Amino acid sequence: MKKIAVVGATGYTGQELIRILVQHPNVKVHNAVSSSNSGKSYASVYPGLSKLADFTCSADDIDTLCSQVDLIFLALPHGLAAKMVSKDVLEKCAIVDLGADFRLKNAGDYDEWYDFTHPNPQLLDCSTYGLPELNREKIKSAKLIANPGCYATCSILSLAPLLKAGLIDESTVIVDAKSGVSGAGRSLSLGVHFDECNESIKAYKLGSHRHTPEIEQALNPYAKDSLAISFTPHLVPMNRGILCTTYGSLKKKVTDKDLFDLYREFYEDEQFIRIFDPQSGDYKYPETRWVKGSNYCDIGLSVDKRTNRAIVVGALDNLVKGAAGQAVQNMNIHFGWQESTGLTHAPIFPA
Amino acid sequence: MKKIAVVGATGYTGQELIRILVQHPNVKVHNAVSSSNSGKSYASVYPGLSKLADFTCSADDIDTLCSQVDLIFLALPHGLAAKMVSKDVLEKCAIVDLGADFRLKNAGDYDEWYDFTHPNPQLLDCSTYGLPELNREKIKSAKLIANPGCYATCSILSLAPLLKAGLIDESTVIVDAKSGVSGAGRSLSLGVHFDECNESIKAYKLGSHRHTPEIEQALNPYAKDSLAISFTPHLVPMNRGILCTTYGSLKKKVTDKDLFDLYREFYEDEQFIRIFDPQSGDYKYPETRWVKGSNYCDIGLSVDKRTNRAIVVGALDNLVKGAAGQAVQNMNIHFGWQESTGLTHAPIFPA
Amino acid sequence: MKKIAVVGATGYTGQELIRILVQHPNVKVHNAVSSSNSGKSYASVYPGLSKLADFTCSADDIDTLCSQVDLIFLALPHGLAAKMVSKDVLEKCAIVDLGADFRLKNAGDYDEWYDFTHPNPQLLDCSTYGLPELNREKIKSAKLIANPGCYATCSILSLAPLLKAGLIDESTVIVDAKSGVSGAGRSLSLGVHFDECNESIKAYKLGSHRHTPEIEQALNPYAKDSLAISFTPHLVPMNRGILCTTYGSLKKKVTDKDLFDLYREFYEDEQFIRIFDPQSGDYKYPETRWVKGSNYCDIGLSVDKRTNRAIVVGALDNLVKGAAGQAVQNMNIHFGWQESTGLTHAPIFPA
Amino acid sequence: MKKIAVVGATGYTGQELIRILVQHPNVKVHNAVSSSNSGKSYASVYPGLSKLADFTCSADDIDTLCSQVDLIFLALPHGLAAKMVSKDVLEKCAIVDLGADFRLKNAGDYDEWYDFTHPNPQLLDCSTYGLPELNREKIKSAKLIANPGCYATCSILSLAPLLKAGLIDESTVIVDAKSGVSGAGRSLSLGVHFDECNESIKAYKLGSHRHTPEIEQALNPYAKDSLAISFTPHLVPMNRGILCTTYGSLKKKVTDKDLFDLYREFYEDEQFIRIFDPQSGDYKYPETRWVKGSNYCDIGLSVDKRTNRAIVVGALDNLVKGAAGQAVQNMNIHFGWQESTGLTHAPIFPA
Repeated sequence: MKKIAVVGATGYTGQELIRILVQHPNVKVHNAVSSSNSGKSYASVYPGLSKLADFTCSADDIDTLCSQVDLIFLALPHGLAAKMVSKDVLEKCAIVDLGADFRLKNAGDYDEWYDFTHPNPQLLDCSTYGLPELNREKIKSAKLIANPGCYATCSILSLAPLLKAGLIDESTVIVDAKSGVSGAGRSLSLGVHFDECNESIKAYKLGSHRHTPEIEQALNPYAKDSLAISFTPHLVPMNRGILCTTYGSLKKKVTDKDLFDLYREFYEDEQFIRIFDPQSGDYKYPETRWVKGSNYCDIGLSVDKRTNRAIVVGALDNLVKGAAGQAVQNMNIHFGWQESTGLTHAPIFPA
Repeated sequence: MKKIAVVGATGYTGQELIRILVQHPNVKVHNAVSSSNSGKSYASVYPGLSKLADFTCSADDIDTLCSQVDLIFLALPHGLAAKMVSKDVLEKCAIVDLGADFRLKNAGDYDEWYDFTHPNPQLLDCSTYGLPELNREKIKSAKLIANPGCYATCSILSLAPLLKAGLIDESTVIVDAKSGVSGAGRSLSLGVHFDECNESIKAYKLGSHRHTPEIEQALNPYAKDSLAISFTPHLVPMNRGILCTTYGSLKKKVTDKDLFDLYREFYEDEQFIRIFDPQSGDYKYPETRWVKGSNYCDIGLSVDKRTNRAIVVGALDNLVKGAAGQAVQNMNIHFGWQESTGLTHAPIFPA
Repeated sequence: MKKIAVVGATGYTGQELIRILVQHPNVKVHNAVSSSNSGKSYASVYPGLSKLADFTCSADDIDTLCSQVDLIFLALPHGLAAKMVSKDVLEKCAIVDLGADFRLKNAGDYDEWYDFTHPNPQLLDCSTYGLPELNREKIKSAKLIANPGCYATCSILSLAPLLKAGLIDESTVIVDAKSGVSGAGRSLSLGVHFDECNESIKAYKLGSHRHTPEIEQALNPYAKDSLAISFTPHLVPMNRGILCTTYGSLKKKVTDKDLFDLYREFYEDEQFIRIFDPQSGDYKYPETRWVKGSNYCDIGLSVDKRTNRAIVVGALDNLVKGAAGQAVQNMNIHFGWQESTGLTHAPIFPA
Repeated sequence: MKKIAVVGATGYTGQELIRILVQHPNVKVHNAVSSSNSGKSYASVYPGLSKLADFTCSADDIDTLCSQVDLIFLALPHGLAAKMVSKDVLEKCAIVDLGADFRLKNAGDYDEWYDFTHPNPQLLDCSTYGLPELNREKIKSAKLIANPGCYATCSILSLAPLLKAGLIDESTVIVDAKSGVSGAGRSLSLGVHFDECNESIKAYKLGSHRHTPEIEQALNPYAKDSLAISFTPHLVPMNRGILCTTYGSLKKKVTDKDLFDLYREFYEDEQFIRIFDPQSGDYKYPETRWVKGSNYCDIGLSVDKRTNRAIVVGALDNLVKGAAGQAVQNMNIHFGWQESTGLTHAPIFPA
């Protein structure tokens, strides 16, 4: 049994990690760190995990933790992890950071997009982007894994095959993304006060969402030129789920079937990717309900023949494949375990 | 007091008409026609209108109605109105059709998009597209008013100023639209069974939604070439509201302020259009919650500088400005009344 | 046109008042007082009221206001109004307080239920409980009107006829109440953070909710002995609406029809009360959807023959008949206007 | 590996069974029977189970199935199972019926409450009521297990300790129950059309819900006299979850702590029952969110001192502990496995 620490254990992402880890056969949660809830029983913060997570929150710092555990998950607001992690820490244990602090390779992007100057830019070279479907080999030997953002995971997985195949004009890529409210976390703010977002939909951060450079960076290896995409997030009145509707102008004529075959082949060996058949059945495109509680990313495809655009729709659970599930997937790769260990939860519907 | 008939009075659109008409100072509902509820009291079908709509549903046919009333609203599934309306009927009373049967000018579009051959194609020339903000003068003298679709109203009002100004490359227009569930009506189907759509979002009818040709037809007068847009509707787990996020590549550099000024000027005299200022305040873009229950269409603007795209976001209540409210607005124009008569409902929030 | 001030104009109750008042034919909002938003335009706080409430929030104090306006609505957290109102103020203008500070006649109840010592207990004798259906005559001449609580309004209207008729054992009265989330107001707290209450139901404040003594006080005149009821509130994942399911053991055998007749007669002349017929139709009992946005209180009835209990179900919109609508109803009575002036909004459905 | 058949595999309850069974280590789904979807792949009916339930729906009849499998789950509308099951079938395999057909011992109750005459009343004596916490020993040897209703499970578990202790006046028991919409199943009806139940709450079947006699029958062994309770169900706009607020007048003075101790002791060894401490923490009472997706039944307690009533609140997931989870728990007991096998899913929150 590997010993694990979760730092930031009482945010939604931290709690989702705890939920998955207490059911994982190979690990034990050794420390659930929460500065705001230190000393409280975990179940007093999340009664749903009573009988399952019967430990107490602590305020342990990372320098102590790294000598006690085999791997630390960091689930913190951006800016905190960048200050905590050091070469010393990384020599003693592995880190999976679920925040943004080690995702971008260009330190200047933090100034531009995140409004802070990265305190440890040299670590950016040591970090590995933890998107297993595209980056599995590097993750195997990584000590510092930067777990992708929720929107980013969905966008990248939806677009990579299309870009790699050189099928679309790279200057035409648009991602119109929709997220449930849990993506905003457990911190209070007026925008996610129940009555302010229930029964309404809005677009936000037009042209300025922080996952934009992350998506571009991850897709650039598949593009001929440096990508610049339009990314528009929307807030949807539901707890969980992300749907990305992505658009790109096709450089040649292809059919729905061509796209279906392309994606099926690209993700042939991926157990967490499911490609919907646009030509058959009642359910031709993904819906967030079909992935809830699971580590799946579902992808659907359509050619808009009148405009010769490809439209690719991706769906995932923002707290699982978009955060905690993918982090555990990265942990499994790190320890050399079967990648789905502890991640076999079937989607729960209706829920 | 003008006498009014509503045919299809017990669908959601019909009921919204009744709600507005019973509060309208200049009209009286003379006939509430519902083939499925004929003989029942209206309040037994919609108890919320008890004490307000204390009349009985009838099964009157249009040939009888047209001699009894001054104006008939038709709120029917597509294909029915096309068979009912005739030159004879139109000589006796005005018609506002809330369905699609008289919206498209090209009869062949019905075969292509609606899977039926229009039985009265000659009437398509007599009908007037009832979007007051763009077509007010023609509506004044129209006898057959084709009330626009909900998605179409929102898309057209969002894009018209941009196209008229010649600012965007017409081949790049994409409308990513999101709708509440009431757009699907009161007829039972699995897709709008509570547990099947609650807490989930999906895209549907990719590249094939029937409002596509309607949007193109209405915007063509503002475009240099014949428009072909990509239109993608999504179903959002909420009762009411439509949000359209529209994209177009700019042909020259403009600022948020330029777009704001353009739209403010374009809609300067329109009491039902509100333009959001992208440069100030906590609420820079429209949200469906701000229009619920009202006849407003709110519009917001953003220039994505990195990609030089204009992003215009429109929001309206699909049952009011997207259907019954706009139909009453058309009626008011037809009778020469102040356009906002009976349409002064403030948006209701939170609701 | 009477001049009106709303103090606490940017909470949900205050905003609902503004929504109703800007559509009211006989009044003008002279001051919208909000300490937290002073100096801001009202529409920047609630964009939905743009074009309708184009005034600026102020920080006027009550001593200034009372010389400027004819009536002041106070929509404040409990404890504040008690300190503001004075005999001097009441000599200059009328007050409708939507909070709890003048509802209870026994000053000691504030210590017991509200955890504060009332600073102006002598004013409790001057205040009039503003439930028009039971207290209309006194309201006509009142200067200080204590607008009832949302749960209290629904509970009292549901139970009064049964108690007045002496039909139930007074020691058996239970009110199991359910409320939408807007009852908790716009102030941030974890319990009404979207993800914490969406898709879940809970009971809260068992045996200790502050509307309990208010209900008992209002119903005591109809009871033989001093009432002691069990009141259990629940939080329901919806924006608006209160449903009260009330129970009492019958002292003799009665039928559904008997109860229906009793209630119809009791509320015969009340335009805002609708009694559902338990014996006919598809909709035998109230549902909150049928009253949304309106000032109605709907009531339904059933005799549980096996246990010989009466079950009375009441439904209202907590922000309208449960707060702002009833406050305007009281204002109308105060000024001698038709009671429904400005309150003729039809319920909006689906919404 | 035991072979299992699920008859009625494509209703919500059937699907929840499939979800649990495909993750259960000791069983294999041998037949997924669905008359309406026979011949279709299971994943085409529920795409969320693609890659997990890659089998085809069949139309096998029970006489065939009973020779092929070790246990059959029946998840059918009431009236069907009663005709299917026979002594012959029961000799060949075990049956867990999730419907109502074998729950009531008194055949006349089916005429009275279910409007049908039971075709196999002699089987009612052979059936065992499958509520493990109260009936575990009998279940071990049962061949025909009648899985309890969702409301019934929650009501019975909430009230049994109180009744067994003789603490409450049996004539005063009231259950005010609230359910999510999935309890109504996947069959279309207007009442569970999205817009008809979203954002609203209603009471229904006052004094006439079919779980009433089931609750009374199960609790009668703990009561001195024959129980007659008032049971009022409500429909809450959420997918999953049941909350029962139960009332009973105390025969003597007890404290919250007394009740807490009583319940903790009563359910001391029960791994699926969690008792909330009314005296400590932020979460004193159950909420449906804490049990979603899990087999837990959470129970909370309060003494309303002013009225000397006990108020006990129970919460469970209607599709898990209220249906499929409890059915699997019964299967585990039947086969002599650890009772929690395949039922260790942690609750999922927020979801």
